[in-house]
Amino acid sequence: MASTKASTILLLFSIFIITFSSTSCLNQYHPLDPLTQTEFNQVKTIIQNSYPSENLTFQYVGLDEPKKSTVLSWNSKSTTKSRPPRRASVVTRLNRETHEIIVDLSTHSIVSSKVHNGNGYPLLTVDEQTLANELPFKYQPFIQSIKRRGLNISQVVCSGFTVGWFGEKTTKRVLKINSFYTNGTVNLFVRPVEGITLVIDLDMMKIVGYRDRGMVPVPRAEGTEYQASKQKPPYGPLLNGASVLSEGDGFVLNGNTIRWANWVFHIGFDVRTGTIISQASIYDLQKQQYRRVLYRGFVSELFVPYMNPTAEWYYKTFFDNGEFGFGQSTVSLEPLTDCPNNAKFIDAYYASQDGTPVKISNAICIFERHAGNILWRHTEVTIPDEVITEVRSEVTLVVRMVAVVGNYDYIIDWEFKPSGSIKLDIGLTGVLETEGVTYTHKDQINEEVYGTLVADNTIAVNHDHFLTYYLDLDVDGEANSFVKNNLVTKRVTDPSIPRKSYWTVVSETAKTESDAKIHLGLKPTELVVVNPNKRTKPGNLIGYRLIPGAVAAPLLLEDDYPQIRGAFTKYNVWVTPYNKSEQWAGGQYVDQSKGDDTLAVWSLRDREIENKDIVLWYTVGFHHPPCQEDFPMMPTLSGGFELRPTNFFESSPVLKVRTKPPPKHAPSPNCTK
Amino acid sequence: MASTKASTILLLFSIFIITFSSTSCLNQYHPLDPLTQTEFNQVKTIIQNSYPSENLTFQYVGLDEPKKSTVLSWNSKSTTKSRPPRRASVVTRLNRETHEIIVDLSTHSIVSSKVHNGNGYPLLTVDEQTLANELPFKYQPFIQSIKRRGLNISQVVCSGFTVGWFGEKTTKRVLKINSFYTNGTVNLFVRPVEGITLVIDLDMMKIVGYRDRGMVPVPRAEGTEYQASKQKPPYGPLLNGASVLSEGDGFVLNGNTIRWANWVFHIGFDVRTGTIISQASIYDLQKQQYRRVLYRGFVSELFVPYMNPTAEWYYKTFFDNGEFGFGQSTVSLEPLTDCPNNAKFIDAYYASQDGTPVKISNAICIFERHAGNILWRHTEVTIPDEVITEVRSEVTLVVRMVAVVGNYDYIIDWEFKPSGSIKLDIGLTGVLETEGVTYTHKDQINEEVYGTLVADNTIAVNHDHFLTYYLDLDVDGEANSFVKNNLVTKRVTDPSIPRKSYWTVVSETAKTESDAKIHLGLKPTELVVVNPNKRTKPGNLIGYRLIPGAVAAPLLLEDDYPQIRGAFTKYNVWVTPYNKSEQWAGGQYVDQSKGDDTLAVWSLRDREIENKDIVLWYTVGFHHPPCQEDFPMMPTLSGGFELRPTNFFESSPVLKVRTKPPPKHAPSPNCTK
Repeated sequence: MASTKASTILLLFSIFIITFSSTSCLNQYHPLDPLTQTEFNQVKTIIQNSYPSENLTFQYVGLDEPKKSTVLSWNSKSTTKSRPPRRASVVTRLNRETHEIIVDLSTHSIVSSKVHNGNGYPLLTVDEQTLANELPFKYQPFIQSIKRRGLNISQVVCSGFTVGWFGEKTTKRVLKINSFYTNGTVNLFVRPVEGITLVIDLDMMKIVGYRDRGMVPVPRAEGTEYQASKQKPPYGPLLNGASVLSEGDGFVLNGNTIRWANWVFHIGFDVRTGTIISQASIYDLQKQQYRRVLYRGFVSELFVPYMNPTAEWYYKTFFDNGEFGFGQSTVSLEPLTDCPNNAKFIDAYYASQDGTPVKISNAICIFERHAGNILWRHTEVTIPDEVITEVRSEVTLVVRMVAVVGNYDYIIDWEFKPSGSIKLDIGLTGVLETEGVTYTHKDQINEEVYGTLVADNTIAVNHDHFLTYYLDLDVDGEANSFVKNNLVTKRVTDPSIPRKSYWTVVSETAKTESDAKIHLGLKPTELVVVNPNKRTKPGNLIGYRLIPGAVAAPLLLEDDYPQIRGAFTKYNVWVTPYNKSEQWAGGQYVDQSKGDDTLAVWSLRDREIENKDIVLWYTVGFHHPPCQEDFPMMPTLSGGFELRPTNFFESSPVLKVRTKPPPKHAPSPNCTK
Repeated sequence: MASTKASTILLLFSIFIITFSSTSCLNQYHPLDPLTQTEFNQVKTIIQNSYPSENLTFQYVGLDEPKKSTVLSWNSKSTTKSRPPRRASVVTRLNRETHEIIVDLSTHSIVSSKVHNGNGYPLLTVDEQTLANELPFKYQPFIQSIKRRGLNISQVVCSGFTVGWFGEKTTKRVLKINSFYTNGTVNLFVRPVEGITLVIDLDMMKIVGYRDRGMVPVPRAEGTEYQASKQKPPYGPLLNGASVLSEGDGFVLNGNTIRWANWVFHIGFDVRTGTIISQASIYDLQKQQYRRVLYRGFVSELFVPYMNPTAEWYYKTFFDNGEFGFGQSTVSLEPLTDCPNNAKFIDAYYASQDGTPVKISNAICIFERHAGNILWRHTEVTIPDEVITEVRSEVTLVVRMVAVVGNYDYIIDWEFKPSGSIKLDIGLTGVLETEGVTYTHKDQINEEVYGTLVADNTIAVNHDHFLTYYLDLDVDGEANSFVKNNLVTKRVTDPSIPRKSYWTVVSETAKTESDAKIHLGLKPTELVVVNPNKRTKPGNLIGYRLIPGAVAAPLLLEDDYPQIRGAFTKYNVWVTPYNKSEQWAGGQYVDQSKGDDTLAVWSLRDREIENKDIVLWYTVGFHHPPCQEDFPMMPTLSGGFELRPTNFFESSPVLKVRTKPPPKHAPSPNCTK
C-alpha cells in the first residue's frame, strides 16, 4: 500500500536520482569518490588477468583512500594531471588464502599483493551466503529433519550466521546455517526451525557439519505478516500524510560534493561501511571562509551479541560491519516512505564475488528536514512598554542510508544543522531474532529463558547493539587535542558569603591514548576536541564538543571471547592518533577474529595524542530486552549523539540567518495561466 | 523579517485560533478545563466582596482540581448536573499574610480560607515585579550611581531577581533588583550594570536596601543586537523555508480535548506550570478500546542555580516555576516560526494581581510533525528470488509552549507518537546571564572567574537547569507498580559451552519510596511503571517504560541552602504515592522556601508504592558552561526523555497503520477550474 501511494505521488513530485558517476566532469571529481562502475570493471579485469583462476573470489573491493596529505593539498581547481592516482584496495580469497592487493587504475597495474597471514577472514560476499543457503536443500539429513517436523520443505528458508571465535587454536572459514519457515508469512525470522544447525565450509562450499538436536514447535504464522497487502481489518491508526513544499531541494549536489546552507561535505560509499562523510566544512560568516570540521566519518563497526548461551545460540555474537558489510547490506530506499518527497537519491555500487559491479539504486537519500523545530528565539518583556519577539525556525539536512543485516534494519542518519551541529542518529527497526519454545504463557516457564515471550512459542532473544563511529575530526586543521572539561564542586571560602558551594570547570588535556578512554556517566565532563594552535578573540580554545546520548556499556565478561573481539566497546569514547591503517574498530578481518587487531589493542601502545591529528571513536550502545510491541515488526527505536561547535565561532553562527519564504502553492499542472 | 514573512503567508494558510472558552457546549466541557475568563472574573468578585481591601493582591488563581475519583467517574456523556463543582484555588497576600482560599463557582461562595503560616512565599505577580522595577528610577542614590558610570538613565532597564534563602531565621518578602543598559541594543541581559543591587520589600513596595559596590565597564552593545531588522550584511546562512502540505490538521480539538491518530488527551493551562496534559489514553486496535496511560503530567519545578558565589551573584539560584510561574511566563507563539504552517493555536488566561484575567494569545500550539522519520520498516532479502520492502513513515503530534523567564526561553514540547510513545522535549534558547568584567582576553585573567569570556567585558556565567516533571501515569488503571528490570551479567556454567557470559533481566519491584530513588547511569536498568493486576496474553506485565535522555546530577553540596531547597534534584527518578497536595517538587511556596516542603522531604516517609496509584517524577538536567556560540543569542540546546509502551500492547500497535496520501497540490486560488 505504501508503494502504491508512492507511485501515485511519484508522478507529482519528481524524485531525482543521481549516480556515483565515472563520467564526472572536472569540477565534479573528488579524490575520495568511491569506485565507479567502470573502475570496478577495470579492477576485475586487472585482477583476473594476474590471477587466472576459477576459484578466485572478490571479498572486498573499494577505493584505496589516497594519503590524507594528498587529499588535503588537492583542490577542485587542480588540473586533471595533479589528481592523486586512483587506486583500489582489493581482498580476494584463492586456495584458502586471503590476498591483499592494491590496484592502480591509472596504470592498470597491480601495485602490491600479499597474503594475509594473521587471524580472521574478510567480509562474506552476498553470493557465497546465497550458495551456502541453498546447500541444505540438496542434503538428505536436512530434508529428513524437516520432514520429521512435518514441515513443507518448499516453505523452508535458510539463513547463514557467522560463527564467531571461542578460543579455537585454528579456524576454518565456516558459516552456520539455521532454517526458518515461511508458509503463510514472509516474516521468517519469527518462525525459526529450532534444533537444526548446519556448518558450511565457505572455501569448499560444502556442508561439513550437521546437527539436529530435536524438535521444538515452530511459532505460528498468524499475526506475523507485515505486508500491507496481507493485513485484515480493523486497520489503524490512520495517519495524515504530508508533502514538504519548498523552493527546490535547498541543496546542490555537484558530483559527490554537497553544498547546503553553510555546509559543504563529500558523500562516499564503501561496501564495508556504507555512507562515508568526508571533508565537512562550515562557512564562517565573520571570517568569510569555510573552516574544517570533519575529515572523515563513518560507522566503523557494529557489534551485536545475543544473550542466549545454549548450544544453538551461544555463538550468535555478530559484527555486522566487518562480517556482513554494512555497505553490502545497504538496501534501496523507498521514495516517500523511507525519505520524504523533497529527498534526492544516490545510487551506489559494490563488487560482487566475481568482481562485477552491483548497483544499489537509491542507496542514500538526502533531504531537508522541516520538523517544526526552533533554531533560536527570544521574547524580550523586560523593557517597559515594549515586547520584542524574534524567532528563527530550524531547517536541517539529513543524509540517510538503511542497512538491513538479516532481520534487523539500521537507519543511519547524518544530520547537519546551520548552527554547526552534526547529529548522528541510529534508528533500530525490522524484525527481532526469536527462539522457538514450547511455551505459550510465562507461567509455564520453570527454566531460564533468554528473552521475552512475545507470542505463542516465541521468545524474542535479549541482545545488544554497539555502533562504533570513526570520527576523524579536524577542528580548524589537523593538529587537535582532546580536552576533558571537568565540572568540579568547590566550597565557598569567603565567610561573608552565606552560600556554601558552586561548580567550576577544570580542564584536562589528554596527553596519551590512555587519558582519553572514557566511561561516560561517571563524572560530569564536557568532552571537546580542540585546536590548541588557534584561539578565539577572547582567547578560548577553538573546539567541537561531543554531546553523548543515552549510554550503554558492555555486560559480557572482559575475558569472554566475544568481548575480547568486541573490546572496542569497553569505553564509550577513545581517541587515537590518525593512522590510515586504523579505521576498523574490530580489526581488518573480523570474521572469526581473535581480537588481536582491535581499537583496544592499538591503543595499548598509549601513543601521544596532544596537538596531533587525532581520531575520535564513539560508541552508541543499546541493551535490548525485547517487548511485545517489537513483534512482529519493531517500531523504530532511536539513539545517537551530537557534535556541537564550542568556541569554534566567535559568536552564534545563526544570528543573521535568513529564510526563503516557501512557495505560495505547489506546482498545479491543472492550472491554466 | 520573520514577522513580515509570517504576515505574508498568514494570508495563504489560515491559522486557527481557539480559546479556552466558557461558552463551551456540553460535549466540550471537561472537569479539568482551566478557569475561563468569566470564571476568573467571578473569583475576583467573590474574593473582593469578602476581603474589601485596597491592598489585597492575587498571587495565584487556578482551577481547584476535582478529586481524581470524581474526574475518573465523570464522562463526556454525563449531564450538566452530574458535573463536579467548579472550584478555584486562590492565594492572596493581605497585610503581610498569605491567604489560601477555595472558591466555589457554582455557589459563588468561599468554601475555605486559611492563612499560610509555613515558610516561603507565593508566586510573584508580573504587576509587582513591574512596579518594583520602576522604583529605582525615583531613587536618588540609584540615579547617582548610574550618572557616576556615565550612563544615560533613560537607557537603563531594571529587572528583579528572587533572593533565595541562605539560612536566615526570619524572612521578608523581598526582591533584588539589578540594572542593565540598552542604549543601542535590546539585548539588555548581555549588558549588565555591575555593582548595583537594590532590595525591594514587595509587600510595602519600597526600597529597603541599596548597595553600589563600585564600577565595572558595561559590555559593548556592538554585536549583541538580535533583531533581524537591525542586522547588517553579510547575512547568512540562507535557509530554505517550507510549508507542510496535508489534508487539514490531522487532529480534532473538541473543547480542550484532542483526538489525533490513536491518541486522546486533554490540554490544560495553569499560571504556575503552563501546559498540563491530562487523561492521555491510546486506542488499542485489538481490544477495540482506549486504554489509559497518563492521568496528569506537567513541569513541576525548574531549578536554575548560577555558579557565581560573589556578593552580587551568590543568591541567583532560581526556581522559575514556583517563583516566577511558568504559565505566567508563557509567551505568545509566532505563527510560522515558533510553530509550522499546519499548527493550531490556543489562547490562555491567568489572573493579574487585581484578579482580572490576562489573555496570552497563541499560548500553546499543536501541530503534526512530518520530520521524515521512519515509523518502522523492513526489507526482506533472505527469501530466494524475492525482495519484500515495507516502510511506514512517521507522523507525530506536538503540543508546544514557550516560557520566557527573563533572559531564558524554554521550549516545552509534548510529542505523541502512533507507536504509543510520549516524548518530552525541552529546548533551551534565549539570552545567557552575563557578568560585566574588565577583561577582554582570557590571558588577562589572574583571578577565578565563574563562566566563559564570550565577548569583551562579558562573562557568561556557569549554571544548571533541572526540569522536574510530574508524571501521574495510570498504566491501564490507577493501581501501578514501579519495576526495575536490572540487566545482570551471568556466567555460563555448562562446560560444553565455550562462551563464558551473557546478561539476563532480574526484575525488582519497588515496595516503598526509598526503593524508587534512582541515580541514573550507575547500573543498566530498564525502569517500568507496570499494572501488576493485568497481564498480556503471554503473561507479561503491562507497562510503560521510561527512556531517559542524557543525565545530569546536581553538583552543589547537599547541605548548601539552594540544594536543600532543590533537593528534589538529588535523584533523577522518584516515585511517590498519589497525593493531590504533592504536585510541586519544590513545595507549594517556593520563594524563599527553606526546603521543608519538597519531594525529598515528602518521600522521607518512605510510603508504600507497590500496586498503588503512583506518581513518577523525572528530572531532566543540563550543566551549562556557556560557549561563544551561545552569544548573543543561544541556538537551541535540546534534551528530554521518552515514555514508551512495554508489553502494554499484545503486539506492535502500528503494524496496520494507514497513511492518507497528501493532497495533490496546495490550494491554488489562481486556478480556473
